[in-house]
Amino acid sequence: MTKTAAIIGGGVIGGGWLARFLLNGWDVNVFDPDPQAERKIGEVLANARRSLPMLYDVALPDEGTLTFCDTLEEAVKNAAWIQESVPERLDIKHKVFAQIETFAPHGAVFGSSTSGFKPSELQQGMKRPEALMVTHPFNPVYLLPLIEVVPSPKTGTDTVAKAKEILTSLGMYPLHVRKEIDAHIADRFLEAVWREGLWLIKDGIATTQEIDDAIRYGFGLRWAQMGLFETFRIAGGEAGMKHFIEQFGPCLKWPWTKLMDVPELTPELTDMIADQSDAQSGALSIRELERLRDDNLVAMMRALKGQDSAAGALINTHQMQITPKKAPDFSKPIQSADRIIPVDWTDYNGHMNESRYAEAFSEAVDFVMGSVGADAAYIASGFSYFTVELSCQYQAEAHAGQKITIESQIMLGEGKKLKVHHRMYAKDGTLLATGDHFMLHVSLKTRRTCNPEPDVLKQLEAAAKAQANLPDPREKRG
Amino acid sequence: MTKTAAIIGGGVIGGGWLARFLLNGWDVNVFDPDPQAERKIGEVLANARRSLPMLYDVALPDEGTLTFCDTLEEAVKNAAWIQESVPERLDIKHKVFAQIETFAPHGAVFGSSTSGFKPSELQQGMKRPEALMVTHPFNPVYLLPLIEVVPSPKTGTDTVAKAKEILTSLGMYPLHVRKEIDAHIADRFLEAVWREGLWLIKDGIATTQEIDDAIRYGFGLRWAQMGLFETFRIAGGEAGMKHFIEQFGPCLKWPWTKLMDVPELTPELTDMIADQSDAQSGALSIRELERLRDDNLVAMMRALKGQDSAAGALINTHQMQITPKKAPDFSKPIQSADRIIPVDWTDYNGHMNESRYAEAFSEAVDFVMGSVGADAAYIASGFSYFTVELSCQYQAEAHAGQKITIESQIMLGEGKKLKVHHRMYAKDGTLLATGDHFMLHVSLKTRRTCNPEPDVLKQLEAAAKAQANLPDPREKRG
Repeated sequence: MTKTAAIIGGGVIGGGWLARFLLNGWDVNVFDPDPQAERKIGEVLANARRSLPMLYDVALPDEGTLTFCDTLEEAVKNAAWIQESVPERLDIKHKVFAQIETFAPHGAVFGSSTSGFKPSELQQGMKRPEALMVTHPFNPVYLLPLIEVVPSPKTGTDTVAKAKEILTSLGMYPLHVRKEIDAHIADRFLEAVWREGLWLIKDGIATTQEIDDAIRYGFGLRWAQMGLFETFRIAGGEAGMKHFIEQFGPCLKWPWTKLMDVPELTPELTDMIADQSDAQSGALSIRELERLRDDNLVAMMRALKGQDSAAGALINTHQMQITPKKAPDFSKPIQSADRIIPVDWTDYNGHMNESRYAEAFSEAVDFVMGSVGADAAYIASGFSYFTVELSCQYQAEAHAGQKITIESQIMLGEGKKLKVHHRMYAKDGTLLATGDHFMLHVSLKTRRTCNPEPDVLKQLEAAAKAQANLPDPREKRG
Repeated sequence: MTKTAAIIGGGVIGGGWLARFLLNGWDVNVFDPDPQAERKIGEVLANARRSLPMLYDVALPDEGTLTFCDTLEEAVKNAAWIQESVPERLDIKHKVFAQIETFAPHGAVFGSSTSGFKPSELQQGMKRPEALMVTHPFNPVYLLPLIEVVPSPKTGTDTVAKAKEILTSLGMYPLHVRKEIDAHIADRFLEAVWREGLWLIKDGIATTQEIDDAIRYGFGLRWAQMGLFETFRIAGGEAGMKHFIEQFGPCLKWPWTKLMDVPELTPELTDMIADQSDAQSGALSIRELERLRDDNLVAMMRALKGQDSAAGALINTHQMQITPKKAPDFSKPIQSADRIIPVDWTDYNGHMNESRYAEAFSEAVDFVMGSVGADAAYIASGFSYFTVELSCQYQAEAHAGQKITIESQIMLGEGKKLKVHHRMYAKDGTLLATGDHFMLHVSLKTRRTCNPEPDVLKQLEAAAKAQANLPDPREKRG
């Protein structure tokens, strides 16, 4: 399969898709007749380039090539994935898919970003309906993993399987919606909340700010990690989910239901909402709000990654897939890190906090351990290295978004002892810091030191011997 | 004001309130006739004691005294805050408030945890309605900051002001609901989503697992930090909120509205939901799910704290309030840290990661800097210290939830140079690690070294002189 994607329709959604593909190593062709398309896409891509790599502790694949095309034909003709994100009008979407199916290669996936249309509606009149499904993303598409994959009965089963595999390889989570339905799944909830919110504003109960605070200081935090039902399961406690439903189900028929009418969006109500939103968020530009949102999302998703839970577990799985697997070469310093400094590593001085240099060296020494066989499986078998001393010498400031690499050299590797020297570099070769690890091998059962298992010891001693022939890095300048 | 709270009705909600007060230094009296109350409250309190302190980088106040009372009178008679969390039946709540107003001292706040009743309904027949308001919390009450404060026209304005002040001092966020309404604000949204979820399950569109994934991998992450309207404002982009409403408002009248009827909760539907929930989460007990939820919440809230945004900004404000303010005493080692190890500081070895010792020392050295006048205001004025070298010597493992303290000693403080030695201890006095900082004073404008401002230099040199008389800590055993 060629790794080429075609993005039909730019804007915030199309641009987000584009960034996902491009930053995961795909070539991307864009077709969007809007004369502002290149600028708009450039802005989304700048946000994505800044934040997506921060989710990972390894480098993303090299970026693919981005091509702005003059015709739809040119964009789709050699694409394995064609993503439609044009305006939400069925007639426009029909026209676009008629062109796509005329020019797209056999076997290509046709995905539609539609929020509301069913795939069977989009497939009306198509000659190749089997290629089409809804692949509905969530803004910002370059950070949020959810994609609702909605096939119709006419969509090819193999095409759905292939689409899910590709989405997973992009670090996304394909949620297979088994029956097509207006608005799929997630937007039904958004719609319900939006409707209730409009009523609360119209009735003068709450402002946009108060509604947002009611969400983000309360159930929003719950939903970011467990959703609705698992949260309710806990609320039911020992009595269980059935008890919970019996207890709270009747509330559904209480006077709250009167709010299920739809409020009329009069110019007055629209103005009221827009004014409240200005009062709430008007001090920041949209760009600044996007930056704030992305920084918050990166920090929270990295927090979940640390717990290997919810969206964080997805990132860990993806990270394992994109981590390069090559046989270690101990005839030169070990390339033990290649990563981006995430926002949560900076402090009040505006630069990477001193302890995060230590964190980077800590991950680097994990890589060195893995290269001599003391990897995750070895640790799971009951052995590890514990650090006795770690020292960091700081040479230069480093900032969020900056690429860093680390070269590590085994200075001593015999018996239970392991000494590693690290040198952290900026992209331009500037030495940012050096670090020195002194570690001892331990049994995780006794928590006491012991010699490594024979295979690891053999690999370690061979590596240490090869590295001993290298010049002493501590005498290097820079 | 005496810092005594009365908790009327234990359980998950009452227990959560109890933990908030107790862990913020209030004495708490509980009245709950349930013979299982003490066990149930004990379980909630154990969860709270583990997780709430992890949100802060300083110690919480000393716990108050917890008293289980045999009568309501005994519980409320000297309480400044009385929180009712009895079952959601108006007749029961009326009986309880009749007793509360009989025995409660003048000036006490009466808060009700009700999810659905309006305060005016609760006040029916009361002699002291001015004391009562709804103070509606969100589970887990010990972690989530949101409290909906809902007064009726009969509630005293001064009582509302006092209630908001107390809630803020507990690290909570009082959202003043200006007009009483069934279900207040947040639960209207929960109800709307719950209703849509029931339909999706009943119609066989999605399972509880699929619904939860649709939430937690998508909009749940957005809502944890910005809520609904600020998120939509961004989606509207440069065209603004008004444009967004005009574009998406019409969707409200699309076929999605058919789902606004309420599905009947037949035994079959109840079983279906309970079975799906078992399939999704049954491998974990409720206790394990609570632990998972609390760890995720702590990690995400700490991530937001690092960004000083959303719920994290609330924690930072509260932390400043609870940080002890005392004049530094340089005639002994500086008590530079007193905190709990949070879950996000541990690694795959199950113990505090080596880099987090460095983080704790980094915060300790900030405290030392502050004690000689190089505090946040000084940094804002354009000066700071940058670290040249930090070394950590590891003596013992430490784990999440464990209390640590750090003693720091200024080893050198002259001109632009600052050297500090740290000793980290467990609660039982075990030495966990030592650390050594070598720092240089810098101008944040030039990013180059320079002497501190005269006042800071004077304080530093005086402190260094006083500390020089202390024994060399590096010669200490333990």
